[in-house]
Amino acid sequence: MSLDRVLNATSVAIVGASRNETKRGYQAIKTLLEQGFEGKIYPVNPKENRVLGFRCYPKVSDIEEPVDLALITTPARTVPSIIEDCGKKGVKGAVIIAGGFRELGAEGKKLEQEMLEVAKKYNVRLIGPNTSGMMNLKNNLNLVGIPDVPKGDIALVSQSGNMALSLITEASVKSQKGFSYYVGVGNEADIKFHEYLEFFGNDPDTKAILMYVEGMSEGRQFLQQAYRTTLQKPIILLKSGRSAAGKASAGSHTGSLAGMSEVAHSAFERAGIIVIDNPDELFPAAECLSSLPSIRTNSVGILADGGGHATIAADILTDLGIKIPKLSNKTQAKLKEILPFTASVRNPVDVAGGADADPSIFAECAKIMLKDADIGGLLIVGLFGGYGIRFAKSLSLIEEDAAHRMGKMVRKRNKPIVVHSLYASRNTHPIELLRYYNIPVYDSLHVACKSIGVLAQRGSYMNEYHAKVNFVFNWGAKAKPGGRKIIETARKEGRNFLLEHEAKALLKLHGAPVTNDRLATTPEQAVKFAEEIGTDVVLKIVSPQILHKSDAGGVKMGLRGKEQVVKGFEEVIQNAKRYNPKAEISGVLVSPMAEQDLEVIIGTKIDDQFGPVIMFGIGGIMVEVLKDVSFRVLPISSASARKMMQEIRSAPILDGVRGNPPYDKKALRKLLVMCSELVESYPEIREMDLNPIIVYHQGAKVVDARVLLRDDC
Amino acid sequence: MSLDRVLNATSVAIVGASRNETKRGYQAIKTLLEQGFEGKIYPVNPKENRVLGFRCYPKVSDIEEPVDLALITTPARTVPSIIEDCGKKGVKGAVIIAGGFRELGAEGKKLEQEMLEVAKKYNVRLIGPNTSGMMNLKNNLNLVGIPDVPKGDIALVSQSGNMALSLITEASVKSQKGFSYYVGVGNEADIKFHEYLEFFGNDPDTKAILMYVEGMSEGRQFLQQAYRTTLQKPIILLKSGRSAAGKASAGSHTGSLAGMSEVAHSAFERAGIIVIDNPDELFPAAECLSSLPSIRTNSVGILADGGGHATIAADILTDLGIKIPKLSNKTQAKLKEILPFTASVRNPVDVAGGADADPSIFAECAKIMLKDADIGGLLIVGLFGGYGIRFAKSLSLIEEDAAHRMGKMVRKRNKPIVVHSLYASRNTHPIELLRYYNIPVYDSLHVACKSIGVLAQRGSYMNEYHAKVNFVFNWGAKAKPGGRKIIETARKEGRNFLLEHEAKALLKLHGAPVTNDRLATTPEQAVKFAEEIGTDVVLKIVSPQILHKSDAGGVKMGLRGKEQVVKGFEEVIQNAKRYNPKAEISGVLVSPMAEQDLEVIIGTKIDDQFGPVIMFGIGGIMVEVLKDVSFRVLPISSASARKMMQEIRSAPILDGVRGNPPYDKKALRKLLVMCSELVESYPEIREMDLNPIIVYHQGAKVVDARVLLRDDC
Repeated sequence: MSLDRVLNATSVAIVGASRNETKRGYQAIKTLLEQGFEGKIYPVNPKENRVLGFRCYPKVSDIEEPVDLALITTPARTVPSIIEDCGKKGVKGAVIIAGGFRELGAEGKKLEQEMLEVAKKYNVRLIGPNTSGMMNLKNNLNLVGIPDVPKGDIALVSQSGNMALSLITEASVKSQKGFSYYVGVGNEADIKFHEYLEFFGNDPDTKAILMYVEGMSEGRQFLQQAYRTTLQKPIILLKSGRSAAGKASAGSHTGSLAGMSEVAHSAFERAGIIVIDNPDELFPAAECLSSLPSIRTNSVGILADGGGHATIAADILTDLGIKIPKLSNKTQAKLKEILPFTASVRNPVDVAGGADADPSIFAECAKIMLKDADIGGLLIVGLFGGYGIRFAKSLSLIEEDAAHRMGKMVRKRNKPIVVHSLYASRNTHPIELLRYYNIPVYDSLHVACKSIGVLAQRGSYMNEYHAKVNFVFNWGAKAKPGGRKIIETARKEGRNFLLEHEAKALLKLHGAPVTNDRLATTPEQAVKFAEEIGTDVVLKIVSPQILHKSDAGGVKMGLRGKEQVVKGFEEVIQNAKRYNPKAEISGVLVSPMAEQDLEVIIGTKIDDQFGPVIMFGIGGIMVEVLKDVSFRVLPISSASARKMMQEIRSAPILDGVRGNPPYDKKALRKLLVMCSELVESYPEIREMDLNPIIVYHQGAKVVDARVLLRDDC
Repeated sequence: MSLDRVLNATSVAIVGASRNETKRGYQAIKTLLEQGFEGKIYPVNPKENRVLGFRCYPKVSDIEEPVDLALITTPARTVPSIIEDCGKKGVKGAVIIAGGFRELGAEGKKLEQEMLEVAKKYNVRLIGPNTSGMMNLKNNLNLVGIPDVPKGDIALVSQSGNMALSLITEASVKSQKGFSYYVGVGNEADIKFHEYLEFFGNDPDTKAILMYVEGMSEGRQFLQQAYRTTLQKPIILLKSGRSAAGKASAGSHTGSLAGMSEVAHSAFERAGIIVIDNPDELFPAAECLSSLPSIRTNSVGILADGGGHATIAADILTDLGIKIPKLSNKTQAKLKEILPFTASVRNPVDVAGGADADPSIFAECAKIMLKDADIGGLLIVGLFGGYGIRFAKSLSLIEEDAAHRMGKMVRKRNKPIVVHSLYASRNTHPIELLRYYNIPVYDSLHVACKSIGVLAQRGSYMNEYHAKVNFVFNWGAKAKPGGRKIIETARKEGRNFLLEHEAKALLKLHGAPVTNDRLATTPEQAVKFAEEIGTDVVLKIVSPQILHKSDAGGVKMGLRGKEQVVKGFEEVIQNAKRYNPKAEISGVLVSPMAEQDLEVIIGTKIDDQFGPVIMFGIGGIMVEVLKDVSFRVLPISSASARKMMQEIRSAPILDGVRGNPPYDKKALRKLLVMCSELVESYPEIREMDLNPIIVYHQGAKVVDARVLLRDDC
């Protein structure tokens, strides 16, 4: 495990150690001492003899004993030579605080490259540069200078030191949870997100991984690792830098190729990552996921005192797609026994003042509701934990008893309870007790709803996990000799694309329903082919120099009979020659006119961050004007293909509108999966464009196909 | 002002006064005493002689002195007779706490009606029933029993007592703001939302009105009042009960006709109301709007220490449609002078650690940024207020100085500053100072962004106010004698709809471009009309008994020449008779075939809550499958009509796609406004359906029109 000696270092050199209290090189040593680092500390500074009682070394290589990790607090330009020295000493890793690398432009980028080369040479792994540092809360290796970070089982990976500080502060103030590690990823120059993910995925003391990301350099490897990790433990991620101003900010901040493509969200979710948009929900999501059972039924019971909070909660959960099922008659009857007649027992359950004099009624109701098989988890909203404040002090004791009982219920039923209390910030004893039992308590109703929401999201993901496909390509595995030959031919002829008939031949080889095209080189041959086809035909020019046939006047449609076909053949060739006098003409493609019906589009391309992706949409205005398309990172499963078709807004069209029978979605699903297979089979494919595909009530037909090849294959 | 003696009551009777500490009738008197109510208190209970030292009266009418208001704490069934007694005594208003009215179903509804009738008889105005009470924080008339409510200039109107408690608690814990009044609206049996609105709109001590609404009974009057009130002061509103479970919850809670139609959001916003979805943003919005200048430029500067918060803030503000303009070169140069070289000065401005040793740099940067004319307000994100905690205690003093300076800047520049600080919940002295200067400080970055967002929303509304139309109909003002006659004819004939040619005649009278239709009663006449038209014609059956002509086979298209027209005429009549043997046939409409182009739809109807509304969409799949339509409450202005066309997703189609020139949006705009005028002119109109309208690159044509009349006019 190559990061073990780095993140679990037991000896650390502080390069730039200082006796000046305002310097990082002083603060870092002081923090290590105060926080009780269990390993060895070696200050390094040629100008000092002793710092904070430690002997100070002129350089790292002067240290006699082995050193795992170096914290480098000196300016950017000094870093490469320090790394060189560290490398010679056999140091395993370095944390580079300085900014002034890639995020500052070309010169900084050069310096970053130089640093990286030295590090590679000596196999020194780098955290940063441009990072706030790292912390191992297990052995108190605190290289950030934030004291008294709450300890716990959440690993925090952040591209912003201040976001980390926010989350740490939130954990201290609003929860009883804490962190196992923190890593400030910084510019991600050497160690990448996916490597941290792998490390924390394997760390037995980490139960959830919390990430703040502005941009990442190796999206696909990240997805692959996340796909593996989320099977074991949840990953919660907030990605910023969506907007132009946000991108610019992220660029100047971490120098990241910020701004992920439109596939990011769905790709992350497919990898099992819980993607969060609102920073208020980030830590709470990790809090819930690291300590509560997930919800397998996508359904929640709401227990309230007074209707307002219940009504809002019902709205928010419904927006999240979570069911709020009506309680069974049996459950309702039991609730009625203990609640006043004005109470509502349907779900949301409103105790309607029934708790004002006896808040233990919440534990009673919780017990009854959690027993209902349709209820996967319980959200309690309102005043719980504050009845002692609101009504009479003595009620606190009753609340405490209720808290103990609810805590045990979660364990017994293996169903989560999440609590909203408008008294959450008062940290009353009942609230502390709930948190002791891992029942989180939020003062934000919105956050409480979203938090129980992620438990349902996690449960649904785990339910469907078997249907997911990982992100690993088995390159070339299903390639066919015929397909290889088509691509090789294009390559030999110096083309970075396939001619239409080649593309269709490739598709046909893998089972796609393409129009039955034939390449004619003479008018007579065209006539013969047209006669054999028997219906109206289309003529299309085939030339390595003409990619956009229509633009060149190289397409003639709806021809029938010898005269029309001969005339069409000649016109198509003349137009092509006029369009590009140097065009070599391979011939003219003779295709049957496909019967008109619904046009759809499938496309694939290589995304900068995630590699091959696929797109689906309904042709014409839906794609061109409404941009109504769905994306997936490849490869995809049949289940993914089905979802792609479902999630476009115009999906109802596929199901048949205005009395039309449904279109053949199965044929499209097969075609989508086949396109995935093609991209996987032939790594040379850069882009595919099946446009249009005509889909019928039975079957589908690929009418035009374009395949572009990578320049570098 | 009919609510003055109610909400500003100086004498109050507590009906149900009790010596039992757990009873509302005890707590209410105790709270009034403890909170220092400045008026007179009269306990009422036939079973008690004295309560808390006061003489207790058997009934309200036994009190010798005048009584403004009665708080009724007794059960529902007792209420009507108590109101009767109050009425006889001349009491102006009553607050009815008990539940058990409309929200419990038919029997409760009857009781509510009974109570209401008594109240109307004696002109006693009612708050509630099913309310937590009301508070006047100016004279300490606290009838809720929540002690120590922070005083201030926000009036709170809520349909949930616990939501009110949440907001009050939030105000105490997270701000220095407070409330002028609270009213628990409850079932809204007598006093309606719009009446409270009017009262608080006129109250000089109220600067903003904060509302939580589950449902309202008189939507249009509310809109009209809000339209007037928001010109003077902001209204901030959260509406719940969108989802099925939420509606059910609201129904059992306040018995409201919950669930507002799809027009609610846009109607509220047009009335100048700030509509909030996330309860976390509700109080902060009121906090900002009641005390900070609004933003007139829709642009914000972001000032941060470290990139993470800045990047997230830029994303959120961009999502809100707020500009984050690049700072002028002059501004950037000034910032560079005082910031480290790693800082970013574009906007977001990142001081990049420049404040770690001197947080006064925030005041410097704020001053420079607010001077930039492109910057309408400033959002500071990160650690401000906590540098003393994070780095060195002494920095607090520098922060305090910076807070003083920033507070004065807001006044001087009349531009708002909003602060996010991860130390907000620590309430440090610098944070208290900021709040003293009405600069709010939030621990939630999301809330800080949304809060500055509402200041921009308010500013934009005030900028565009002149273009808004109020919600008042000038019924019949623009009616034409010819139009009246058409409607009267239908009425006389016992129809609640117009025949197609009548509807078109009505439209034409008001300037709509309708097809030139003529009603033929014989085949010969039809032939004559067709010849005069000269192009292909459409024949359509006209019968008072046949509303859906196509279903009856009553439409024939694309006919030309005598033979076709005669045959068509006969078929249409035969089909109609077969469809409904009792149908009276008025004749056959002969219309020119309109040239095909883009089909759009305009419709109007009467919304349950808001009265007449209008809808616009592009015909076919856009409306039928994608439900891509926009709604407005009528009447509308030309500017509103333009926005309706802009806000459908398929709007680009109107601008011309695939090389098409744009469609004649001006013609559609005129048509929308004309439909608004028609509904206003003829109150008899219940529903209009112009479908299809064919729009061309020049002009438009109403091809079919349906007008339904109200049954009750």
